[in-house]
Amino acid sequence: MSKICIIVTSEKLDKLFPAMTLASTAAISGWDAELFFTFWGLLALKKGYEPSDVSTDYRQFGPKLSEAFASGSMPSWKTILEQGRATGRLKVYACSTTFGLLGFEENALESFVDDVIGAATFLGKAKDADITLFIS
Amino acid sequence: MSKICIIVTSEKLDKLFPAMTLASTAAISGWDAELFFTFWGLLALKKGYEPSDVSTDYRQFGPKLSEAFASGSMPSWKTILEQGRATGRLKVYACSTTFGLLGFEENALESFVDDVIGAATFLGKAKDADITLFIS
Amino acid sequence: MSKICIIVTSEKLDKLFPAMTLASTAAISGWDAELFFTFWGLLALKKGYEPSDVSTDYRQFGPKLSEAFASGSMPSWKTILEQGRATGRLKVYACSTTFGLLGFEENALESFVDDVIGAATFLGKAKDADITLFIS
Repeated sequence: MSKICIIVTSEKLDKLFPAMTLASTAAISGWDAELFFTFWGLLALKKGYEPSDVSTDYRQFGPKLSEAFASGSMPSWKTILEQGRATGRLKVYACSTTFGLLGFEENALESFVDDVIGAATFLGKAKDADITLFIS
Repeated sequence: MSKICIIVTSEKLDKLFPAMTLASTAAISGWDAELFFTFWGLLALKKGYEPSDVSTDYRQFGPKLSEAFASGSMPSWKTILEQGRATGRLKVYACSTTFGLLGFEENALESFVDDVIGAATFLGKAKDADITLFIS
Repeated sequence: MSKICIIVTSEKLDKLFPAMTLASTAAISGWDAELFFTFWGLLALKKGYEPSDVSTDYRQFGPKLSEAFASGSMPSWKTILEQGRATGRLKVYACSTTFGLLGFEENALESFVDDVIGAATFLGKAKDADITLFIS
């Protein structure tokens, strides 16, 4: 079976959107897909936190993106993630070593997180992936 | 044959430059090279649009980069792209789902774009690549 | 043997940290690990230069990161790099074509740089890697 692994180190909407789209498109196409949220990306997995910014380089497109989400012409990153997860082939991992830096605990993670793992475990998973990406 | 696939989601000069250099170097070395421009990266493919900024993090180097391009000590990103395309082994794809967000149509694309495809098609192409990168 | 190759084009602390962590974790796990510093990333290899910023998108976390480094709760990027290099399986390469842009010479490189190579040579090394990442 084909497999894609994506390391996500940003929670900006314009980073989450392509990351979720690639992972869910892969899962819907029959691939295994594994997302590893680390560093600033881990913020997106905190219960009750809703990413709302685009990256500084493209801040001028922020309102357009918000409008596209609000009008439904673009699905939200969580909707896309859930579409992938519904296949049973998309897994979400939180990086075990980042919590201290961001000041929250594992019990504050969203329920869609499958596991909390370290970099060595993730590398073992990515080793046999067809595609591994770093999205920051 | 070796193959590299690159997803390009930024049109900042300091992102386009390494993306084009890696793709064209690969093509000139006999590899297949496929570039998939999506999200903000798609802007670079709009006819008549000329990317001119470096990313915010390195704005202080903008003048130096412009100077290097102007003096010819560094080729422009389009020159590097054309060197790769001259081999017949470098293909340029535009992401079909990004046009709505950026507010332009497929007929506004530069003539060097080989095709307009979706994420699923791109994943199928990248599946057998030796290297797949995400440049944002 | 497993192998990871990482292209590093930024010297911001929040980019260097995950790059070094992934490379050194891999090396410590028995993998070969090769880092290719190019573009702005090459700055990190300049003797006497100490990267101190986080990327603009996450500037608000800068003080927290500095504090974590100062208190020792997080090792510095160079400490992590040295842990990987101590295995003998982690190599550091500087991109030969970037020096002109940044205005310094090969003799100003840190002593932990193993070699100065071009993009074509790096691609040849990455071709048989299990994982190749672009961190910008």
